[in-house]
Amino acid sequence: MDTNFRVTRRGFLAGLGLASATAAVGATSACADDSDPAPVPNTDSTGATPDATVAFDGPHQAGVATPLQRHNTTVAFTLRDGVDVAGIRRLLRIWTGDARRLTQGEPVLADLEPELASDPGRLTVTCGFGRGLFEKAGMTDKAPDWLAPLPEFTGDRLEARWGDRDLVLQICGEDRTTVSHALRVLVRGGADYARPSWSQTGFLDIPRGADGTPGTPRNLFGFKDGTVNPRSDVEFDDQVWIGEDAASHPSQTGGTCMVIRRIVFDMPLWESADRPTRETSMGRTIVEGNPLSGEKEHDEPDTSAVGVDGLPVIDRNAHIALAGVHDGDTRQRMLRRAYNYDLPVTPSSADALLDAEPVALSDTGLIFTCFQPDPRTSFIPVQRRLAAGDRLNEWITHVGSAVFLIPAGTAEGEYWGEALLG
Amino acid sequence: MDTNFRVTRRGFLAGLGLASATAAVGATSACADDSDPAPVPNTDSTGATPDATVAFDGPHQAGVATPLQRHNTTVAFTLRDGVDVAGIRRLLRIWTGDARRLTQGEPVLADLEPELASDPGRLTVTCGFGRGLFEKAGMTDKAPDWLAPLPEFTGDRLEARWGDRDLVLQICGEDRTTVSHALRVLVRGGADYARPSWSQTGFLDIPRGADGTPGTPRNLFGFKDGTVNPRSDVEFDDQVWIGEDAASHPSQTGGTCMVIRRIVFDMPLWESADRPTRETSMGRTIVEGNPLSGEKEHDEPDTSAVGVDGLPVIDRNAHIALAGVHDGDTRQRMLRRAYNYDLPVTPSSADALLDAEPVALSDTGLIFTCFQPDPRTSFIPVQRRLAAGDRLNEWITHVGSAVFLIPAGTAEGEYWGEALLG
Repeated sequence: MDTNFRVTRRGFLAGLGLASATAAVGATSACADDSDPAPVPNTDSTGATPDATVAFDGPHQAGVATPLQRHNTTVAFTLRDGVDVAGIRRLLRIWTGDARRLTQGEPVLADLEPELASDPGRLTVTCGFGRGLFEKAGMTDKAPDWLAPLPEFTGDRLEARWGDRDLVLQICGEDRTTVSHALRVLVRGGADYARPSWSQTGFLDIPRGADGTPGTPRNLFGFKDGTVNPRSDVEFDDQVWIGEDAASHPSQTGGTCMVIRRIVFDMPLWESADRPTRETSMGRTIVEGNPLSGEKEHDEPDTSAVGVDGLPVIDRNAHIALAGVHDGDTRQRMLRRAYNYDLPVTPSSADALLDAEPVALSDTGLIFTCFQPDPRTSFIPVQRRLAAGDRLNEWITHVGSAVFLIPAGTAEGEYWGEALLG
Repeated sequence: MDTNFRVTRRGFLAGLGLASATAAVGATSACADDSDPAPVPNTDSTGATPDATVAFDGPHQAGVATPLQRHNTTVAFTLRDGVDVAGIRRLLRIWTGDARRLTQGEPVLADLEPELASDPGRLTVTCGFGRGLFEKAGMTDKAPDWLAPLPEFTGDRLEARWGDRDLVLQICGEDRTTVSHALRVLVRGGADYARPSWSQTGFLDIPRGADGTPGTPRNLFGFKDGTVNPRSDVEFDDQVWIGEDAASHPSQTGGTCMVIRRIVFDMPLWESADRPTRETSMGRTIVEGNPLSGEKEHDEPDTSAVGVDGLPVIDRNAHIALAGVHDGDTRQRMLRRAYNYDLPVTPSSADALLDAEPVALSDTGLIFTCFQPDPRTSFIPVQRRLAAGDRLNEWITHVGSAVFLIPAGTAEGEYWGEALLG
């Protein structure tokens, strides 16, 4: 019995007759032995199993078009004093090599816990650069024009502790232990050059259809989150990846802009709202997730539909009425890749607990991450509308905001951003 | 495609040809339509899939002998001022009814997010009583003699914020979202009677053998954790459940004693230790988990074995040399059900972050939970030995300690502890 425990989960699935499903993943999505991590949105019919390996090298970094994994830890770093472009290059060479190994189930050279790396469980590591990196590298000419703190929106209560930093690593995977291990390995590997400044950890539970198709996961308000997302290669090229036209420097091509917003949910207040209020505020039903103007989750919302009472079927200030494309400007589309968080509140002393009445049970919300070629034509105008009018604002508060350039993917042996910094 | 998303994960597994594996679970373990939640330890060959429903009613509460789920949130409660035995009974009636429904995939009567409850994902809810509950009920004669704060052990740095409370709910499941939802429903349902005082959230990744057999998960030191555990019904009766002989009142029979210790891991220091140091300190190999005196994980450690150098093969102060049965006193056995935790450290301001060097990346460790008939003959003598000599003490610190009586299981319609408090 003992030796069986060393069989990987892939072996387990194969043993249960899922080998064909696993093989299908290899053929159609971003998996081992597929050097081109083709964009496979999480709502696509890939039949993806949770346990494939995701290819590291390719035209785009993994962890963006990769179908959603269950866990996400995103860590922002500050470069240490005195680290210049040569140091940045060394850091990125170390990190890229480590991430390339970890995601393929190979321990890094100095890994003291290789057992925690042997089964990557769809681990991806995605690296991003903040403006500070370009400044410290003396290369602001290569930074995208949009790479700067986002404007403050109405209602924002931003905390600097979740703000812009020099670098970011988004680590996603099916296994929480593997994600924790990868994070520690990467932090240790880069310790001479950068130190972690914040980390945000989230989770999702991905529903599966009868054919294994991943469905849209729910957030902690109970709504499906991420229904409207690009699916085809063409849509990804259009809505996610930086094309030649959007690049302010050619070396940005193939990358993407990552915006990460920390959004607190007021759960007690939400729990006092009835279902019609909730569905009206969202503009969608809770069970199916269809727009109130339609019947199925992926039906296009019809914001002009009017009910028998003469009122709009989708309230003008419903979340989806404001979050969608306005004025026919399709540049407002983007890839949403949000994760739930639900942290226990742990006051520093028992006295603090006894004083507080009622005790806050948890710190709950959403780590909203989106990807697009340029936030000035997508996230910013959309968020401006939402901040001004979204009915959901009664229950949500944005407390964190950061923006990063995710450089293009790597060829074998290349390091992240080599085209930009090399 | 849309309607497929409403198919449960069980449907998904069945669609992939796993129906027979799922059915096997129903026949052999604590699953739906099996009114007797037979003790099925997590190392048993049940072929359990992660998505079965765990029966609620039975001679023992679920969540103890239940094969490990991936997520665990354990919440301790303080009874509100003035809540007497009648109020306690009402609280337990509400909670038992809600837990019975939630674990079977039925929303509670006032659930506003039933979609988060529809697929329980092996959800279990286990309820425990602290001494405070018996005091406030005016029934200390029914409290076990051992139901009191554990003695402080050498090296303990206990914080009251993780200490003894009136009540506890251990909520375990495969899906983090479902666990979060169940927690909120239960807290809300009991809000008039009790308020949450602490919560501890942990995770595990359960390896599976080629035949689906669950293996022993690893903690964040990289070691398999929980190798030595009861497996058969006889062992559970002996090592876990309170028998008539161990009960100080007949109504305790069928229950168990839950000890929950919060143990901080010093990860940076651990990462500076080499593998021989680690394996010597544990007394087991890391890869396989075999005792240094044996070859397989489940081989009985031979603490008398001597190497060619004349030294003991298992160091006298290795963790397993002290954690096992001593002096032939088999009462020192217990069920270990530990979960990893890895919380981001989030200082209250950016300034605090910038001041701290190096920044603590995470608050990492183990939520060690064990079950036994009487801690005075099991956890306490074992922990006394470990506290005095365990080599692992260099890297671990106990900061939380609480003990609860888990009452026996319920018959249909009964509430938790009805035999004790009725």
